Amino acid sequence: MIERIAILGTGLLGTSVGLALRAAGFQGSIVGWNRGAEGAQAALSMGAIDSIGTDPLRVACQSQVVLLAVPIYATLDYMERLAPLLGSEHLVTDVGSTKGQITAAAGRLFNTPERAAFLPGHPMAGKERGGATLGDANLFRGAVWLFTDDPSWLRSPHSAELVKGWREWVSAMGSKTLDLEPARHDELVAWVSHLPQFVATALSALLEEEVGAAPELKDVGGRALREMTRLGASPYSMWRDIAYTNTEAVETALAALEQRLAHLRENLRTPALRDEFEQANRFRRE
Amino acid sequence: MIERIAILGTGLLGTSVGLALRAAGFQGSIVGWNRGAEGAQAALSMGAIDSIGTDPLRVACQSQVVLLAVPIYATLDYMERLAPLLGSEHLVTDVGSTKGQITAAAGRLFNTPERAAFLPGHPMAGKERGGATLGDANLFRGAVWLFTDDPSWLRSPHSAELVKGWREWVSAMGSKTLDLEPARHDELVAWVSHLPQFVATALSALLEEEVGAAPELKDVGGRALREMTRLGASPYSMWRDIAYTNTEAVETALAALEQRLAHLRENLRTPALRDEFEQANRFRRE
Repeated sequence: MIERIAILGTGLLGTSVGLALRAAGFQGSIVGWNRGAEGAQAALSMGAIDSIGTDPLRVACQSQVVLLAVPIYATLDYMERLAPLLGSEHLVTDVGSTKGQITAAAGRLFNTPERAAFLPGHPMAGKERGGATLGDANLFRGAVWLFTDDPSWLRSPHSAELVKGWREWVSAMGSKTLDLEPARHDELVAWVSHLPQFVATALSALLEEEVGAAPELKDVGGRALREMTRLGASPYSMWRDIAYTNTEAVETALAALEQRLAHLRENLRTPALRDEFEQANRFRRE
Repeated sequence: MIERIAILGTGLLGTSVGLALRAAGFQGSIVGWNRGAEGAQAALSMGAIDSIGTDPLRVACQSQVVLLAVPIYATLDYMERLAPLLGSEHLVTDVGSTKGQITAAAGRLFNTPERAAFLPGHPMAGKERGGATLGDANLFRGAVWLFTDDPSWLRSPHSAELVKGWREWVSAMGSKTLDLEPARHDELVAWVSHLPQFVATALSALLEEEVGAAPELKDVGGRALREMTRLGASPYSMWRDIAYTNTEAVETALAALEQRLAHLRENLRTPALRDEFEQANRFRRE
């Protein structure tokens, strides 16, 4: 029943969704819009979108499903602007990495029988660099796509059908869906996504200071070092809004890791180091 | 000229060296010895060694090149026991991850015109799990193989030739060799190898506490989390001697990372976060 999709923001995620929808057999139209014309052109030439819209709000009004694939504050801004324009024949969904503020706005601005539905979503997939040209039809294959939908929201039967339809396309793109409460979502991703990123950033920044002047020494680290610093390539622009909208949970996770590292440092020659390795081994048991 | 090699310790590294030598065209004999009979049998059946010796010291005496592929303290122990038994027709080399104590022992016990040569070596390759069955002929391909040879050592012409020959086999196995002073080696690997390992251990141990009880939540982290915690599977037995023999350098590196994480945590909403990302990006520039 979904035949017209708008993708606002044809960066890595928006472009990948377009490609993944096509790969999964989506036959309808996909209109794209992007702040930078280059990204939209790239998505078009890759086949992720069929056409480029001239105005994001008009593109949204002409579609059934609007995917917001932009940073978190831009998503919140679009939500404000789209809510008065769209009705119960529409579904808006997003890919933002924190869900507290977006889900609150979704309850305030959408999800009544008269208004458009808003399904807050977060695919746990990405790359350490962004941009349409890195778009990948398989990006979501095997990944978890989180939703922070609220069962108390009263939607029109039509927009409820669109929500169901979008969830089916997410599964068709190869993702496993999981529903979480927004606060639990933000806490969980602070541990399993944001903490690993900030650790990789801090480790890479530190190593740039220590061995950055002698690039041949980076090779010495081999695969282990490459893996542990790959996310160090992630740009600030992809993480700024996350740091701003999940500050407390990230602070908690970082402080806990600092303590853990201090504990390990103080026990390099005691049996507590064995305990720490065994605890880590349990996390990676198969 | 090298025709008889003994590998003492047919774990992951010893077995991989045997396989890599064969893949590189080594035609001579490779005798193996391992504390556990199972590991020796596995290496034999994989073709990494031709035969299993009954006594490590006898195996060493009958070979030209003796590769010690055991933990650091076991290496130091073998050095003490082998030095009086071997003469200038022998080369002993090793794969230990720290080189300060081993290189000091090599100067004290080996490397005179009458004694065997000892070439302290350290291939920067490995896996997060050990054992002969994970042995891999390509493990050293593209890796850096560090040496902490001392140019002031006076070796017999014969053992100097063996050193040259072994270096050539290391290159033939696909590694790039690099010579460092032992203190510089231990400092460098503290940053590019030991720090990443201990961070992965601490991160994995922490996450086991936070989300270990709900295994489905680990999937949420996706590739980024898997990469940042892969080394969490490394066993204590592989890292105990490293922690004991490079304590000070590892303490320095861990303390520096703790400070860096605290700095990042205190600046999640300030422009300093951008600086930190940009510094990390420089480490990963291509």
